[in-house]
Amino acid sequence: MDGGSLRTLDWAGGPDGVVEMVDQTALPGAYTVLRIDNVPDMVAAIQRLSVRGAPAIGVAGAFGVALAVRAHGTSGPAFEAAVASLRQARPTAVNLARMVDRAASKASEGFDAVLAEAATIRDEELAASHAMGSLGADLVLDLVGRADIRAMTICNTGGLAAVERGTALAVIQTLHERGRLAEALALETRPLLQGARLTAWELDRMGAPHRLLVDSAGPFMLARGQADVVLTGADRVAANGDTANKIGTFSLALGARHAGVPFIVVAPESTVDADTPDGAGIAIEDRGTDEVVSLAGASTAPDGTAAANPAFDVTPAEFITAVVTDQRVVRLDQNQTPA
Amino acid sequence: MDGGSLRTLDWAGGPDGVVEMVDQTALPGAYTVLRIDNVPDMVAAIQRLSVRGAPAIGVAGAFGVALAVRAHGTSGPAFEAAVASLRQARPTAVNLARMVDRAASKASEGFDAVLAEAATIRDEELAASHAMGSLGADLVLDLVGRADIRAMTICNTGGLAAVERGTALAVIQTLHERGRLAEALALETRPLLQGARLTAWELDRMGAPHRLLVDSAGPFMLARGQADVVLTGADRVAANGDTANKIGTFSLALGARHAGVPFIVVAPESTVDADTPDGAGIAIEDRGTDEVVSLAGASTAPDGTAAANPAFDVTPAEFITAVVTDQRVVRLDQNQTPA
Repeated sequence: MDGGSLRTLDWAGGPDGVVEMVDQTALPGAYTVLRIDNVPDMVAAIQRLSVRGAPAIGVAGAFGVALAVRAHGTSGPAFEAAVASLRQARPTAVNLARMVDRAASKASEGFDAVLAEAATIRDEELAASHAMGSLGADLVLDLVGRADIRAMTICNTGGLAAVERGTALAVIQTLHERGRLAEALALETRPLLQGARLTAWELDRMGAPHRLLVDSAGPFMLARGQADVVLTGADRVAANGDTANKIGTFSLALGARHAGVPFIVVAPESTVDADTPDGAGIAIEDRGTDEVVSLAGASTAPDGTAAANPAFDVTPAEFITAVVTDQRVVRLDQNQTPA
Repeated sequence: MDGGSLRTLDWAGGPDGVVEMVDQTALPGAYTVLRIDNVPDMVAAIQRLSVRGAPAIGVAGAFGVALAVRAHGTSGPAFEAAVASLRQARPTAVNLARMVDRAASKASEGFDAVLAEAATIRDEELAASHAMGSLGADLVLDLVGRADIRAMTICNTGGLAAVERGTALAVIQTLHERGRLAEALALETRPLLQGARLTAWELDRMGAPHRLLVDSAGPFMLARGQADVVLTGADRVAANGDTANKIGTFSLALGARHAGVPFIVVAPESTVDADTPDGAGIAIEDRGTDEVVSLAGASTAPDGTAAANPAFDVTPAEFITAVVTDQRVVRLDQNQTPA
């Protein structure tokens, strides 16, 4: 991983190699690459959020299975325990368990087969990000009648959440590579500031012109004609197109509708949940008071202040122009539905 | 100023007295009362924002004129220079210059007359806050069909911005005093966190149940039925009712409209600007990058990140249910206009 391209994690070396991983807990203050050669260190890295984002965690887990085979062989209690620890490193990330299982299913064929399967998973993620970037950029250029696009986004949906490029930020990167990006407007994304810490860092790294905004300025900047499109990721897309994503996404969707600006969700096909008919069935996690009453370690409110802290919100399909996946463009504004 | 009531500033003692003032730069970490007995200290207190909010600054300036008379007599170059320094302590606050001039117009009648005029200005501000609280609470109870009101608000519009009680927060305080407040939901108000630092502190001090939210959660909490009314202050109300206020207000107005919740602006009559026909004529100050890329002294984004930082936004009259002043209720939803 040199300074030029951003690959969040990868296998480095041959059979004796290690997993190299950008330590996201150190960004943006420091760019540190972890070298992980055993399963317990991988589990710890996943748990402390050195790696985050469903695609990136899935790839990390798959490479972790290769480390498990190298340490414990292709079967037996120690191998099984190592795989289980990877699988459970973050219990709510379905993608992690799925990718760990995929890699582990090759264990009987030996280390090389497991490592090859993990590399295939990585390559599939890379291809998916490229596809989303390309489909999304085509759609934006089709919808927006300007030579240079001003794109607003929230949270971090870039290479740091995937292997490279990401989802919504992949679209922005593709526009930039095509010479069609005038400016990216990144919302800081309180409470955890993924926009300020990570997206601004990625935009800087890719050389894309950008400015940071406090979250509440997004809808007003749209009303004042400062952006041509809103691009967001998704945690889950219901069958009717209602989309759960980082808190603040709904507010941006209201602003985009008021301003007459396209609002585009970019997420891998695996994010579409056909078993959830609409957003009413999506439970909202409240992550508690601490994140709201403090910032970067400093207290921001009187001691004892309680907070409501919904971690994500649900944007109704009626406010979404399109959902772009790695396989297709679903035009919600033309009454198409994802499932 | 005891611990029970919150009077942001007042004259303490007789002719030899001082201006006592809550030092807002120390909140919420410490409750410190400044004792100011000379004009340069008063100018410095205004300039470093120990006192803030147009009504409070106006009263501070008026008492400052009494300090000027005591030090320099009722006329002459030293007196004139002291008055000018008060008048110009914050050049953009029209209310400051107006109240300094009002107090100074009594100088020829001597110190007692100046001090009495400053006290009258203070009492007018107190009466205005009581009137806004009462008119606003009546309106909220009229509009919302619930015994207990859940009220959302942004920024700090309480006693700290006035002499006591304030504007939008005065309505919440009045509801609380009437036993009709279920909960106040305060937005933290990035970038300067007036909601987290000051409003949460005032709500705690008045014993009102409350929770803090990140700004972008406001519209979603409204969509989920978590609040019955939105109450905000105003920096300027145009003749047609378009309202400039702290950044984030417009976003809340969009959320209130989507949720079918009343959106009420509370501001003194002096905030209505009959010379500005509508919001298109209101220039938006950009306060620069520093406030956005840092928080409580800590850096939140990579070095060199640029930011857009509109300090306030404009909410179109069509999204405002009513404007409540100290003299009247203007029902914008019934096609009334403020001027």
